[in-house]
Amino acid sequence: MSLDLYREVVERIRAKNAQLILNVTTGPGGRFVPSDEDPKVAGPGTTLVPPEKRVEHIAVLRPDICTLDLNTMNSGKQVVINTPGNVRRMAKVINDAGVKPEIELFDSGDIALMNDLLKDGTLRGPILASFVMGVRYGFQPSPETILYARSLLPSDAEFTAIGIGRTAFHAVALSYLSGGHVRVGLEDAVYIAHGRLAPSNAAMVEKARRIVEDLGGQIATSREARDIIGLPSRLTNAKPAALAANQ
Amino acid sequence: MSLDLYREVVERIRAKNAQLILNVTTGPGGRFVPSDEDPKVAGPGTTLVPPEKRVEHIAVLRPDICTLDLNTMNSGKQVVINTPGNVRRMAKVINDAGVKPEIELFDSGDIALMNDLLKDGTLRGPILASFVMGVRYGFQPSPETILYARSLLPSDAEFTAIGIGRTAFHAVALSYLSGGHVRVGLEDAVYIAHGRLAPSNAAMVEKARRIVEDLGGQIATSREARDIIGLPSRLTNAKPAALAANQ
Amino acid sequence: MSLDLYREVVERIRAKNAQLILNVTTGPGGRFVPSDEDPKVAGPGTTLVPPEKRVEHIAVLRPDICTLDLNTMNSGKQVVINTPGNVRRMAKVINDAGVKPEIELFDSGDIALMNDLLKDGTLRGPILASFVMGVRYGFQPSPETILYARSLLPSDAEFTAIGIGRTAFHAVALSYLSGGHVRVGLEDAVYIAHGRLAPSNAAMVEKARRIVEDLGGQIATSREARDIIGLPSRLTNAKPAALAANQ
Amino acid sequence: MSLDLYREVVERIRAKNAQLILNVTTGPGGRFVPSDEDPKVAGPGTTLVPPEKRVEHIAVLRPDICTLDLNTMNSGKQVVINTPGNVRRMAKVINDAGVKPEIELFDSGDIALMNDLLKDGTLRGPILASFVMGVRYGFQPSPETILYARSLLPSDAEFTAIGIGRTAFHAVALSYLSGGHVRVGLEDAVYIAHGRLAPSNAAMVEKARRIVEDLGGQIATSREARDIIGLPSRLTNAKPAALAANQ
Repeated sequence: MSLDLYREVVERIRAKNAQLILNVTTGPGGRFVPSDEDPKVAGPGTTLVPPEKRVEHIAVLRPDICTLDLNTMNSGKQVVINTPGNVRRMAKVINDAGVKPEIELFDSGDIALMNDLLKDGTLRGPILASFVMGVRYGFQPSPETILYARSLLPSDAEFTAIGIGRTAFHAVALSYLSGGHVRVGLEDAVYIAHGRLAPSNAAMVEKARRIVEDLGGQIATSREARDIIGLPSRLTNAKPAALAANQ
Repeated sequence: MSLDLYREVVERIRAKNAQLILNVTTGPGGRFVPSDEDPKVAGPGTTLVPPEKRVEHIAVLRPDICTLDLNTMNSGKQVVINTPGNVRRMAKVINDAGVKPEIELFDSGDIALMNDLLKDGTLRGPILASFVMGVRYGFQPSPETILYARSLLPSDAEFTAIGIGRTAFHAVALSYLSGGHVRVGLEDAVYIAHGRLAPSNAAMVEKARRIVEDLGGQIATSREARDIIGLPSRLTNAKPAALAANQ
Repeated sequence: MSLDLYREVVERIRAKNAQLILNVTTGPGGRFVPSDEDPKVAGPGTTLVPPEKRVEHIAVLRPDICTLDLNTMNSGKQVVINTPGNVRRMAKVINDAGVKPEIELFDSGDIALMNDLLKDGTLRGPILASFVMGVRYGFQPSPETILYARSLLPSDAEFTAIGIGRTAFHAVALSYLSGGHVRVGLEDAVYIAHGRLAPSNAAMVEKARRIVEDLGGQIATSREARDIIGLPSRLTNAKPAALAANQ
Repeated sequence: MSLDLYREVVERIRAKNAQLILNVTTGPGGRFVPSDEDPKVAGPGTTLVPPEKRVEHIAVLRPDICTLDLNTMNSGKQVVINTPGNVRRMAKVINDAGVKPEIELFDSGDIALMNDLLKDGTLRGPILASFVMGVRYGFQPSPETILYARSLLPSDAEFTAIGIGRTAFHAVALSYLSGGHVRVGLEDAVYIAHGRLAPSNAAMVEKARRIVEDLGGQIATSREARDIIGLPSRLTNAKPAALAANQ
């Protein structure tokens, strides 16, 4: 969560390619680990901090997009806590910075929260949403999950179904064939195929691209992706770019 | 959570009808309210206690069934926390007491947890499961939700879809027509129809019964329900009974 | 298919209640029974006539609505044939008469045909569609069938899911709870409950009304139904009326 | 439908590879084209012949598998007629020849017929079924169609979802990811990618194989496929083989 590290990453990418869409996480700082003897007292591993602290780097670095997690759930042995009130406080900072939130949805209740946040004006459509499938214990990956989650979205939303771990490339095909976008990268999976570690994000993007193209799809350039999502074009360095790699 | 009050309720019902299936809650004691200034510190409204404390009355009173909530989620402005570890500790007490758990599922990830608990032997099938629909923020009530949730169950599970609030009777019809059981009562809804407070649990059960019968179904007696769920028959007072009212 | 009989029914109903919505069938005249020895030769039971003949009474009597079946299918041991070309010829007569077609859909392919007929201008939206469930061999009744069929409709369509035979009242509840209208009557089912013959259409409508009202719904008056479907109000005899009974 | 041509194809393939699974069509001979002036009289284009004639080559050549179409439907401007009675007559010849039928399902009603044929003993499980998606007017290709159709199958059935035309490779990915097998070939589609004619069946199989392997799947050898489907192994020439190409 060091601002300096976030800044270095953003600046080094921007220096190489200003047109690439940068999507910076706001996930860290949301974990609570109940202690064994008294579960209401935070135990070791707890990272929970005030919501404004979790988006400090967004206000400063103003990337194109940042994540906004709507989940309160078990995540392995830890608990992730994003209360509606704290999500509103994070969204205020993100909105004030002019950054587009990517709404991360880990289970169906998160979509209900998203729809309430749209109604009360905390979020503004069209929404850019992700279904995160495969975290224990949230959405599990399957065609049914994507179709069910999609049925809960506003009709003008753009969505991506994401598979964590060994279903990362299943999710690429299913998301595309269900009308969604695709995402892969080392945040979500470290294997590029059964038993083979991915050599790089680029290798995973190439594989995802091949799957989409085999299914008759096309990968958007950064410019086209900016149009689809409703981001402004950037002034310089307008080289064509492939998928926005999520870091 | 007073043992004396639980005991009084159980004994007064048992005195009237020993055959009725008693399903006693273990829900209280699971809430965490992050304080505004430092979310990792429990604020007012927090009820979180060690898991063994939450099932103390089950070990003593040994009802036919008790609830076992698998949710960690936002529940209004509060957070409900049921970690896999703490659920295992509660399940141990319930199993040792010879009580059948009714697994309460508030979103799809809870079903993934249930399936993991079946695999590691914490729970034993056939499962008795409930889909709780309408809590903000978990499953929302719809035919899609029931079909999706049902698709995640083991094939030998018995299930009931429950609607909280104004969809309580929608859930009765949809659950029955999707192959499930039905449940109504003042824990879930206080209106029996738009704008009309329910006079009693009995009135709600009568209405649920009419809906099921209009759809060609039949209400099981307590004995038949005991067979379906796999509960032993009780020795005395075997009067026919209607739906097991949930309190 | 006698015009005189159609006329007598229409006039006697109109004389009692001009506001009631009349929906007259165009189903007869579409059956082909292949002969055993040479299946391309029509055998006994064949009723197939030129399409204009099947809608002659519509041009003359101009009811509010008439059915338009889009199915080519096995229907018991007979074959129902409605080719795209012949459906277009029937639709022309219906459109010229200013009558609203109720599009009867017996399987998913019929919805694909409906969508093609909307594209080429044969039909004009918003569509009034029915899913007929339970004919052997078309759609079979279930919540899945209604949700799947609904997913194939244009977003502005009005629909009713209909259950043939013992699922007639299942379909009432499921159609209403899936956002559709309801229909019952002696064309679709002769039993009002398991083993009990329906005494009348009116008794079936009363039961359907009770189910809808128990689920929190309201039955439209004829006037309201005319607004929903996009039919003109009629000038006289504007008594309130219940469901449009299908004959 | 010439026996000599069927025989030549079968023998030339057998001479090269006895282990390859041969699936021979019984589709021809089922079309009825109503004449414009009198639809009950067969017009030009009609091919309908007695059912025994349509399976004559199966009785003689005894391939591993032959198709059995359960559809009565519009197919473009023509009508395909497969009545339950005639399907039973075809199934008898196929069963007597010891050939495994591949049940071709063009819409949901065909699955209801299949289930009735299983109940009356005409067909014996486990079924080998195909969902044919994309014929106008039957199943249209989508993830929803596959999940809906799959929900109607017996639990021990093996299935393949097939896409006709431009969705041939969508169907490969969706069928595999829904638990089914895959099929491609020049019977179903002539383009291997947008605007590019397929050079051969082999090229299409290679592309299907790449898609399946990118998704983490494996292509069965002929021997493994024989085990999966329940076909006997053949005695000679047991070279490894790829997908059973459908011709």
